[in-house]
Amino acid sequence: MKTKCAACAVSTTTRGRTNVAMTAGVVVTASLTVMMSGCFEEDRKVKQEPEKTVATEASGGLFDVAKSRGLKEEDLAAALKTFVPTGARDAYVGMLTGGTSGRLVVFGMPSMRVLKIVGIFTPEPWQGFGYDDESRALLESSAREDVEYGFGESGLPALSETAGVYDGVALFAADAAHGRVGVMHLDDFETKQVVTNPFFLTSHPDVAVTPGTEYVIQTTAAPELPASEWAPVNAALAARLRGGVTFWRFQRGETPSSNRIEAKGSFAVELPPYVQGESDSGKGTSSGWVFTIGACRGKGVVPGVDETCGTASVPSVLHVINLEAAQKLAASTASRDVTDDVARVSLARAVQGQALGQVALPPGPTSLSIAPDGQRALVTFGFGTSITVLDLAQLKSVDWSSAPPDDFGVPTLPAGALGAQNIEVGGPTADAAFSKAGHAYVSVVEPGRLVRLDLARRAISTHLDLGFSGGRLLIPGGDSAAPTGAYAVVMNTQPHGRFVSVGPVTGLNPHLVDISETKLVSLYDMSVPQASGLAGVAMPAPEDAALIRYALGTDTRSGALSPFRTIPGQERVERKGNRVHVFGTLIRSHLTPEIVEVDEGDEVTFHLTNLEQAQDQTHGFTVGTYNVHGSWEPGKVASVTFVADQPGVFPYYCTEFCSALHLEMMGYLLVKPKGYKATAEDSAEKPSFDPAKMKEAYEAKMKVITETQAVIDSVVKWLTDNKYERDPRAAALVKDAVAQLEQTKEIKPKIDAAVAAAEWQQALLWAEQYFQYQVKCADAGLRAKKILSESEAQ
Amino acid sequence: MKTKCAACAVSTTTRGRTNVAMTAGVVVTASLTVMMSGCFEEDRKVKQEPEKTVATEASGGLFDVAKSRGLKEEDLAAALKTFVPTGARDAYVGMLTGGTSGRLVVFGMPSMRVLKIVGIFTPEPWQGFGYDDESRALLESSAREDVEYGFGESGLPALSETAGVYDGVALFAADAAHGRVGVMHLDDFETKQVVTNPFFLTSHPDVAVTPGTEYVIQTTAAPELPASEWAPVNAALAARLRGGVTFWRFQRGETPSSNRIEAKGSFAVELPPYVQGESDSGKGTSSGWVFTIGACRGKGVVPGVDETCGTASVPSVLHVINLEAAQKLAASTASRDVTDDVARVSLARAVQGQALGQVALPPGPTSLSIAPDGQRALVTFGFGTSITVLDLAQLKSVDWSSAPPDDFGVPTLPAGALGAQNIEVGGPTADAAFSKAGHAYVSVVEPGRLVRLDLARRAISTHLDLGFSGGRLLIPGGDSAAPTGAYAVVMNTQPHGRFVSVGPVTGLNPHLVDISETKLVSLYDMSVPQASGLAGVAMPAPEDAALIRYALGTDTRSGALSPFRTIPGQERVERKGNRVHVFGTLIRSHLTPEIVEVDEGDEVTFHLTNLEQAQDQTHGFTVGTYNVHGSWEPGKVASVTFVADQPGVFPYYCTEFCSALHLEMMGYLLVKPKGYKATAEDSAEKPSFDPAKMKEAYEAKMKVITETQAVIDSVVKWLTDNKYERDPRAAALVKDAVAQLEQTKEIKPKIDAAVAAAEWQQALLWAEQYFQYQVKCADAGLRAKKILSESEAQ
Repeated sequence: MKTKCAACAVSTTTRGRTNVAMTAGVVVTASLTVMMSGCFEEDRKVKQEPEKTVATEASGGLFDVAKSRGLKEEDLAAALKTFVPTGARDAYVGMLTGGTSGRLVVFGMPSMRVLKIVGIFTPEPWQGFGYDDESRALLESSAREDVEYGFGESGLPALSETAGVYDGVALFAADAAHGRVGVMHLDDFETKQVVTNPFFLTSHPDVAVTPGTEYVIQTTAAPELPASEWAPVNAALAARLRGGVTFWRFQRGETPSSNRIEAKGSFAVELPPYVQGESDSGKGTSSGWVFTIGACRGKGVVPGVDETCGTASVPSVLHVINLEAAQKLAASTASRDVTDDVARVSLARAVQGQALGQVALPPGPTSLSIAPDGQRALVTFGFGTSITVLDLAQLKSVDWSSAPPDDFGVPTLPAGALGAQNIEVGGPTADAAFSKAGHAYVSVVEPGRLVRLDLARRAISTHLDLGFSGGRLLIPGGDSAAPTGAYAVVMNTQPHGRFVSVGPVTGLNPHLVDISETKLVSLYDMSVPQASGLAGVAMPAPEDAALIRYALGTDTRSGALSPFRTIPGQERVERKGNRVHVFGTLIRSHLTPEIVEVDEGDEVTFHLTNLEQAQDQTHGFTVGTYNVHGSWEPGKVASVTFVADQPGVFPYYCTEFCSALHLEMMGYLLVKPKGYKATAEDSAEKPSFDPAKMKEAYEAKMKVITETQAVIDSVVKWLTDNKYERDPRAAALVKDAVAQLEQTKEIKPKIDAAVAAAEWQQALLWAEQYFQYQVKCADAGLRAKKILSESEAQ
Repeated sequence: MKTKCAACAVSTTTRGRTNVAMTAGVVVTASLTVMMSGCFEEDRKVKQEPEKTVATEASGGLFDVAKSRGLKEEDLAAALKTFVPTGARDAYVGMLTGGTSGRLVVFGMPSMRVLKIVGIFTPEPWQGFGYDDESRALLESSAREDVEYGFGESGLPALSETAGVYDGVALFAADAAHGRVGVMHLDDFETKQVVTNPFFLTSHPDVAVTPGTEYVIQTTAAPELPASEWAPVNAALAARLRGGVTFWRFQRGETPSSNRIEAKGSFAVELPPYVQGESDSGKGTSSGWVFTIGACRGKGVVPGVDETCGTASVPSVLHVINLEAAQKLAASTASRDVTDDVARVSLARAVQGQALGQVALPPGPTSLSIAPDGQRALVTFGFGTSITVLDLAQLKSVDWSSAPPDDFGVPTLPAGALGAQNIEVGGPTADAAFSKAGHAYVSVVEPGRLVRLDLARRAISTHLDLGFSGGRLLIPGGDSAAPTGAYAVVMNTQPHGRFVSVGPVTGLNPHLVDISETKLVSLYDMSVPQASGLAGVAMPAPEDAALIRYALGTDTRSGALSPFRTIPGQERVERKGNRVHVFGTLIRSHLTPEIVEVDEGDEVTFHLTNLEQAQDQTHGFTVGTYNVHGSWEPGKVASVTFVADQPGVFPYYCTEFCSALHLEMMGYLLVKPKGYKATAEDSAEKPSFDPAKMKEAYEAKMKVITETQAVIDSVVKWLTDNKYERDPRAAALVKDAVAQLEQTKEIKPKIDAAVAAAEWQQALLWAEQYFQYQVKCADAGLRAKKILSESEAQ
């Protein structure tokens, strides 16, 4: 049925019509399409709103909303497909690297909200990463000699896999500018390790893993001389340049924090001097092989090879590495060199040991994608209008010994040896990915398109015009053996015209597409700030909450208990010569000790323990003008060290808005000047408190405590009556609430003792602490009540 | 009419019903509410979708979408109120500080997308801020002596105003930890200046401005001794501690880049030793006065004053500064001291000169908000259940001389002197703000609520339960003389349970509320990463695009042409002793020069000019392992300096994904080892290129150029036929396209000359450059075509 709303300019159809039964007893066949897009002028409500700009008072006014905001028909569906309301969760967690930001952007899909930005290679004050001693040591150990690395350049990260499927243990990313690989754990989304390639100065920004994460795969980008070697610009230099692929061994530990890269067992294999492209490991059918693109050879310094990589007849290849043969060479003292525990296999030995072969490719390869079952590989190209499909199953029967060697002796087969077939897609391409339903998707640069391929028919099933140059492609699980998503994200690195203009540089633009239906539909323009490039992965949002607190006293970078952990009452200052260690604690709303006196020139370390165990109860710490900073999540221990080289009185304080009494969390560092001469003023009395005022304040606080307890009791009764255990989220909150209340039991005797001794200031302080636990208990309890009330109302 | 869908559990009403005229001629009264929320079970479509997770094939399937995603009735309205589709723009631009991140988060409202994150106090590799020489100098000049400040701690920023209304010139933010104020310009959203308080080590994290931005107002947080002074913890120390308010003079310049803070004309006034709270300047009725909250006095080191600030009978006050009297004192050599060109007026002199008075307040003030007309001030409190309204109009008739002095001699009046009235709001409060419609809104901490007040009746009009502890409050223009927004944002700093859990710390949560109607309605949970606190401002999104390019050769930090700017063909390396200056250029897809040879130990500076003028055409630059980095927006000049202390061959390259040939933008830095002895290899031939291959590649490229020109010509015809001038966005793009094509005219003779000389490599390089301009021209033209096509279709 075709309908047209008489008063409307837009012709509409009644796809998706529905029968609405009404109390009037009339069955009406209506089209939501008509209602939503065709009849905005049916705006008969006369309202007297106080702030008239956004329309509507209730959902009955959805018409008004859509009309006033200029939303079109397709926008309504996109809005409903991406909106994640309060209390709901995103279906996927995505992780994007931001190019030179050296950070990981964690986002929810389909809301495309940025949930977290994690410093991997770049100091990140918000997390204290690169500021506290523990994480500074982590970063500094990855830097060469005296340079303090301040950024990283990352491309495609990789998630750890077991049997080819994401296992939620770790994420790996490369730093191209400094040849590093970073490891972030997926239980707490914190960076645990950064290793530096002992052989290659820089690296390709992408990484990949083998199907069991036995290895993390890093390659060079530009070919290099071995570190610190040198040659003038001539043919000799060209002959000595090498690419390389490094296999970092990932060691599974017994605890989550012990999952780490180990130098021992890691190795690198030299490649001919190509500018490398994306790499991937075979899986399923192609298990045991690793592939890396050699996009063009030499680049400028290599005589006889032109410098415009893709345009001319520059050789491009797919390097094919036999992992078992390479491991064997790396394990043999006869065929390897070892630096920093990592073995290196030379190009000549790799060839000799039959660990390396090549398959010739057309010019300008831009990406490599291997199908979930490991059989097919797609290669996209920055030139021409087609992509290449390789059949990796044919690897088993390839006779490398008959392949002609290239200039470097590497056996090199024509693409036909892997049954190469081209599929016409209408333009140069940037990336490809596989979906749950077994489709292949290709991102076309110009004209900007997302193309769905029918690989069996070697034809385009359908496509979506993007309106921008297609960039890299993300499908949840798309690089694993089990893609899961109904979404694709196409990266747009030139987003102008998509957002309000905020200067010459703005956020880049991952563009969300619904690939769940026959037709591909654009859904949303995400904005990613601090990014100079975009590449990413996504996994289903974990059902269980990630780690939300650490065991009290944890050094979070190592996962072990910190030797510097401090429990309440044991706060102290220890001095040896001019070395001062402050062992302090953080808890709402006290920072203990509150006065620290040192001498000018002392080297001072604050070892701080966050005593909290309640969710979200993070504290910060800074000392004015000393550039000292850190972030202490519940249970965490971290240390900050500085030389007190300026005399004076310096406020220090908590830098997280942690409670209503946040301003209380402060103290003073007094740095006594060198050669200070005491004055008459110095003999003035120490600060004291008026006992009567303290007693009055104590009594007022105890009254509040009694009132608060009554509230807590009533909430507890409600929760028990309403069987809070039935909802796991409520149950978790009640557990938190009970734990907080338990803490008050330890405080009570301290209050009583202070009162008995008429030490009113002490009594007030302990009462304040008691109250803080009550507040947190009440807060968690009320959150649980809200969750249960809402689930009941449905 | 009340309806109930027979098969549904949810009772629904028909608010917002509408008449739908259909071609069948039947007029149907239906309720969208019923259709959307009541009848999801009417899911009769049988589909065979390829990737079945997100439902719906067309908007007719909106039912399916809402149902499958578990959206409730109110969610639908919220989705439509916040969704900003491709091609549309957010209505407001908001700016949040992130606590210790030292950065500014720029976001769109109502989509709540993060558009940009700007480094103000923290080095930010993505923008090169704190990495290139120009911005490093900016940051380093703000740090004390040898310390390199790596972060900042900011609270409420302020937008520049003219006559009390945002004027779009600048944003100001404070760094509490280091006593600094940063200035970001609003044309390019780049940080231009960071000044350091010469008197106070640390500061309150909030700033404010006077109605004409004559001054930026910064206060202390904790009271301090003068910098570098020292005293033991005793009564003498307590007597010498001071708070202070600093008035930074903002000098308007003739060009946008010359709007800057000037030390000369800036001054500070000492305050008694309170922990300071929020400040604001009077406006309208209260113009000429500046107000700052003294939240509690002394804190620990002050004898006789208890340390739990708000709970007991600790004096809290509103400091009231007579700006004219203070200016007079600051200008008089008799009553001031001057450091670094900034005058300081002592507490005694401020009292003597009648520049300072105080109004007593209840304990625990948390915020200060002045109404758009300047008459009323609201003060919120962390204790008790009411807020205080002051009538600032009464200031004119206050007799300060009759007011009793406090311990420090400051005349202090009871709150009644300003007609203080309390309004009961049901809990302790965090913040207040005013709206366009003249309402006052208050954020209640517990129970978490947003309250709308009728100030005339001194009563609550309505409230919204938030489900979290209400934090700071943002209404667009809410701190100016002209609030504009239909939205309020309530800050939630403990967001747990609102997002997928990604570890112990996650993004904080600005919560968007629709305040445009009688009822207050929650709309959306934004997530802000890298934040330890949240405070912000918002302004209407500018109609004109912000600055999208710089004049070729601009030092963007100063706004002037850089002495290091370099034009094509003048790239060069200059050496004086061991000091090497490289004058280079960046353009798709060449980084010139491509080989730089230096000696170990040389101090090397790359002065790079981005030759681009096309929007979004930013380039980056890094030298492997030298921790060198920067970002070059179109037209920008910036320099990076390092000591070449490691011998070897180091790739350098562009770090922005700038075009399909991005990988081409690379070169090598060759650092010759100290004492290098030439070998036989060194006399090997220089790299050369095969002329035949070069010629072939050149001819292939020229063919592509001819084809591309045909495409450009057809697009130009289409644009002209379709009168592109009628759409300003299309017209801007066409201007860009023409500018790009113009550049090819300069290239053509160079190609011809190379061909004439049979220098085929040169010919190919110039042809490549020619093609790059064509590509950009075509891209801009096609974007313009798309905009015009879409606007026609509507």
